[in-house]
Amino acid sequence: MKQWDTVAIVGVGLIGGSIGLGLRERGLARRVVGIGRRESTLKAARQAGAVTSTTLDLAKGVSNAELVVICTPVGRIVTDVRAASEACPQDCLITDAGSTKAEIVSALEGKSLGRARFIGSHPLAGSEKSGPTAAVGDLFLGKTVIVTPTRATRKQDYTALFAFWTDLGANVVSMSAAAHDRILAATSHLPHLAASALAAATPAADLEFAAGGWLDTTRIAAGDPELWQQIFLANQTHILSALGRYEKSLAALRRALERGDGKKLKELLLQAKRRRDALAS
Amino acid sequence: MKQWDTVAIVGVGLIGGSIGLGLRERGLARRVVGIGRRESTLKAARQAGAVTSTTLDLAKGVSNAELVVICTPVGRIVTDVRAASEACPQDCLITDAGSTKAEIVSALEGKSLGRARFIGSHPLAGSEKSGPTAAVGDLFLGKTVIVTPTRATRKQDYTALFAFWTDLGANVVSMSAAAHDRILAATSHLPHLAASALAAATPAADLEFAAGGWLDTTRIAAGDPELWQQIFLANQTHILSALGRYEKSLAALRRALERGDGKKLKELLLQAKRRRDALAS
Repeated sequence: MKQWDTVAIVGVGLIGGSIGLGLRERGLARRVVGIGRRESTLKAARQAGAVTSTTLDLAKGVSNAELVVICTPVGRIVTDVRAASEACPQDCLITDAGSTKAEIVSALEGKSLGRARFIGSHPLAGSEKSGPTAAVGDLFLGKTVIVTPTRATRKQDYTALFAFWTDLGANVVSMSAAAHDRILAATSHLPHLAASALAAATPAADLEFAAGGWLDTTRIAAGDPELWQQIFLANQTHILSALGRYEKSLAALRRALERGDGKKLKELLLQAKRRRDALAS
Repeated sequence: MKQWDTVAIVGVGLIGGSIGLGLRERGLARRVVGIGRRESTLKAARQAGAVTSTTLDLAKGVSNAELVVICTPVGRIVTDVRAASEACPQDCLITDAGSTKAEIVSALEGKSLGRARFIGSHPLAGSEKSGPTAAVGDLFLGKTVIVTPTRATRKQDYTALFAFWTDLGANVVSMSAAAHDRILAATSHLPHLAASALAAATPAADLEFAAGGWLDTTRIAAGDPELWQQIFLANQTHILSALGRYEKSLAALRRALERGDGKKLKELLLQAKRRRDALAS
């Protein structure tokens, strides 16, 4: 267990709030500073017990931090990392929780970050819910966190970041930012796109007959459009590749259905079932 | 509450088994006869308490039934209704639990069914699980059951069927078989197709990084391929229409993503979110 003196969290929504709660419930940090742009969110984070203090002033909030975790939307992360790096103490470690990595890591890699150093993180935990009231201290328990060190990453920083996520209950996996973005396009970004298209394609008048299957399949379409628009743009190339594979899968099912080819339909459904059955629940 | 003397259930899997359990737990039937083609399934249904007796012989099983519920796969329902109608007592009511209705209802409507009468049903309850061990007596509680009476339906039969499902806790909605199939193509059959295509399009090597979003979005792809192939073929035209709408939704997202048009992406995601937010959980 690594004990932190002061951890600053920029953005105390579901992810940032859950990090704060996790740190506090496990006694991993003496102080957790919540930084945000709306007093109402900061107040909710305080009331949830996710932070020990809050401020609207990022520079002030990170001024004593050993670790800064940027939990803002993908489109703001680079700006927030830079701002934090200019106000934090010498040798401060900065990480993030963004759903894309290559754009962020390449913008920050090898660049001057004042006295701080950055390693990218992406906890594969979340939900269609948002805000500090949805935060739970066990959000990362048993979940995977992908971290994306580069050649410039110092060993002691990687070790500290590894301990941070591990102490919150997560399994840490290390890979390149490019590998992260390719994989997440298939396992997270494409499913979001597919779920959104499905929700949008359902006639409003038919919704009252939507049952468990529709609800499961479209659940993530309830996610924040602003946040997901940023993720889509930041991982455009890989998502378009994954979408291409999906369109081929759909086209194969369409052809079999148009032909009334029951044997082929069953074969395609069986392949899909096997892929799904590889994972539980 | 309508008290039944003998209800025969043909096919004691998840749906048939749950009907039996619901009838027994609520004291709605004196006898529940489970009919199947495999002794192992019948044994499991007996052990689950879903039936009071079982038989491999359909004719024998329905011989004293006031009500026969056919819970076999869509492709077998017409055959099983006909077989039941030839062996059941005078004025026996037969219904089913099939996920498509037009093909079944038109094959049986106005045709001689011996001394029995048929009304189609479709309980909008189920899961990717199957078999009598997954059965629960409350499966229909608060769920919608669509029934598809025709001009030939007698009022007392409709009333009895309405009571049957209502007593199991369901909300009964009546509509034509064609309307049922058009709606279910959008709310159930297309989601299954989309989920299956998504599971199939995910590279096996990336599966270990699949998180909640992927799991939700692909859950129903674990359904029985044989059963779903029959549903797809029985509702081909409506599913192809729904798939056409889905392909348009996907194409709009693709175009916005290719162009890097953040404003359009956000607008499309917001439309999808609103449709999804119209329903809870």
